[in-house]
Amino acid sequence: MNLGEELPSSSRSAAIRWLSNEYHEHNGSSYAVLQSPPTALEFSRLVHVSRPVLIKGYPLPALERWSDSYLIDAMDGKEFSVAVTPDGRADGITPGLDGKRYFVEPHVEKMAMPTFLSHLAQGSETSLDSGIRYLQSQNGNLYSSTEDDSEFDVLRKDVPRDVPWCTEALDRSPDAVNLWIGDSRSVTSIHSDPYENIYTVVRGAKHFTLLPPTEGWCLQERSYPHAQYTRDNPDSSLSLAPSPPSVPNVRWSSISNPHLPGNLPPEAHPIYITVNAGETLYLPKGWWHHVRQAPDITIAVNWWYDVESSGMDWVLLRFLRGPEEVAEWDAEEGSV
Amino acid sequence: MNLGEELPSSSRSAAIRWLSNEYHEHNGSSYAVLQSPPTALEFSRLVHVSRPVLIKGYPLPALERWSDSYLIDAMDGKEFSVAVTPDGRADGITPGLDGKRYFVEPHVEKMAMPTFLSHLAQGSETSLDSGIRYLQSQNGNLYSSTEDDSEFDVLRKDVPRDVPWCTEALDRSPDAVNLWIGDSRSVTSIHSDPYENIYTVVRGAKHFTLLPPTEGWCLQERSYPHAQYTRDNPDSSLSLAPSPPSVPNVRWSSISNPHLPGNLPPEAHPIYITVNAGETLYLPKGWWHHVRQAPDITIAVNWWYDVESSGMDWVLLRFLRGPEEVAEWDAEEGSV
Repeated sequence: MNLGEELPSSSRSAAIRWLSNEYHEHNGSSYAVLQSPPTALEFSRLVHVSRPVLIKGYPLPALERWSDSYLIDAMDGKEFSVAVTPDGRADGITPGLDGKRYFVEPHVEKMAMPTFLSHLAQGSETSLDSGIRYLQSQNGNLYSSTEDDSEFDVLRKDVPRDVPWCTEALDRSPDAVNLWIGDSRSVTSIHSDPYENIYTVVRGAKHFTLLPPTEGWCLQERSYPHAQYTRDNPDSSLSLAPSPPSVPNVRWSSISNPHLPGNLPPEAHPIYITVNAGETLYLPKGWWHHVRQAPDITIAVNWWYDVESSGMDWVLLRFLRGPEEVAEWDAEEGSV
Repeated sequence: MNLGEELPSSSRSAAIRWLSNEYHEHNGSSYAVLQSPPTALEFSRLVHVSRPVLIKGYPLPALERWSDSYLIDAMDGKEFSVAVTPDGRADGITPGLDGKRYFVEPHVEKMAMPTFLSHLAQGSETSLDSGIRYLQSQNGNLYSSTEDDSEFDVLRKDVPRDVPWCTEALDRSPDAVNLWIGDSRSVTSIHSDPYENIYTVVRGAKHFTLLPPTEGWCLQERSYPHAQYTRDNPDSSLSLAPSPPSVPNVRWSSISNPHLPGNLPPEAHPIYITVNAGETLYLPKGWWHHVRQAPDITIAVNWWYDVESSGMDWVLLRFLRGPEEVAEWDAEEGSV
């Protein structure tokens, strides 16, 4: 029996808005800052509260080691997968040549570390020609619970497989550990993940814009056809290729830039947190996040841990996400 | 700003039913049984899941000591407050002589331990004359965060002021620690508390009937006028005295006996847990509970800990509880 279909969307919507307002009235927009990593027990309490926490002083060997020359030496010419887009907006909503809006995945190219880092260092001078690079493969590219191999196995000695206080608090190992390298030209569009996320910046800085799970209704999720950037060779320009109809539509926020005045309704209360090198963000399950990066090369690693499956967490996140089916985006809705 | 008034009750009701169904589909009616007390970290995880847990092996000096003769000797003739009712139903809904239904508090009499225990031991033979006794003062009668004195200070050496693994998990001390002594003639009507509750049975057994916070809508909360049992002297019979209009109405479930077929709708999924002597129940915040006792003298102690105030707990419990205002009970609604 599933009564989910029987909840009128107007009722769900009214209830979500009530919860959204009450949650903000009760919690405000503050976040905790810890001067040193929590114990497992302290972190367990923070997971229960499920609000973002900026954690200082979590030591990571990579913090001391990952200069350009170290990375180049360690990788020793080995190629890895890099996302390439014309505008730094992978996994976001972009209009195609036909005027329709698509959820577009990046083109992926193999590249060695010296080439990649020099692309980032050259900045905007070369981007128009060959595209903007972002190492963001987010498939457990450092460690994965389902895959032994890693394009970055030589860097594993600099990044522990898990975060001990988080593993002990949650009583589970991370599903995926990811390496991210990019610069300010790459932006991550606003979305939420069903994971407890520990995010450490190694070099540069990440600027997070966060909304609680209760405020997802402000983000106008719509259903978008899927597309991918492609090109014939690394020197030609990228084109947006709509995927065949067999590829399912993607549900995504229509708000490309939550910082533009008027793009979020007044009931949204974004929290802005800059995570500098050496700092770690606890980004709780279901929190919406938009991420920008410092102009310099920004390097980060993150650990994704599965959400507690018992109790209310899953049920509530599903409820707050809104109806299973969302409408296709309608050009009449205006610009995003 | 409080938009709470603006949530139509039909929307809230539809949303609660959806959550109620999804929560049950996701969690079922099982509960965990631990063979020994959890560590603070393990308990912190259990608090996050917020489902009942039966815990064996939590040692309490009272378990070894509290025979009738020990209690009589320790109390040394000191009198204490005992609830007296004609039917064992304190703090529940009872019709008055005028046919109206009232939320009735018990008459309270001072009594020494030998008299009290002999009342319980004599069972139904004497109850019709002098009323049914239940030590249930539930005001932190052993320890209170707001009151130093205790009618049972001489028993404090047998009951620790807090439960170490709970105190450490929640990072706070209990608000109140209570002693309960009664028998099967006394029943606790179904209600919920905004506390994390640790409940240890010392002698006898308690039979809990539990519903999750999501199923509170099954319990027909209504607004009832307040009353109290009174009598002129300990030998006269008890009468139900409606309180003056200045005493506010009490919001309470109209379901006196959730075990009678048809009293709960099919969407309610009660969990039945018997807690025997030496066993401890973790009864999470907001869970509805109806409690019966073994025919023998049943003695229990409980620790109430404040709920985490940050995050979603409070907001969600308020939402699930339904509108702030509930209707007065209407005789047309039928028997309870």
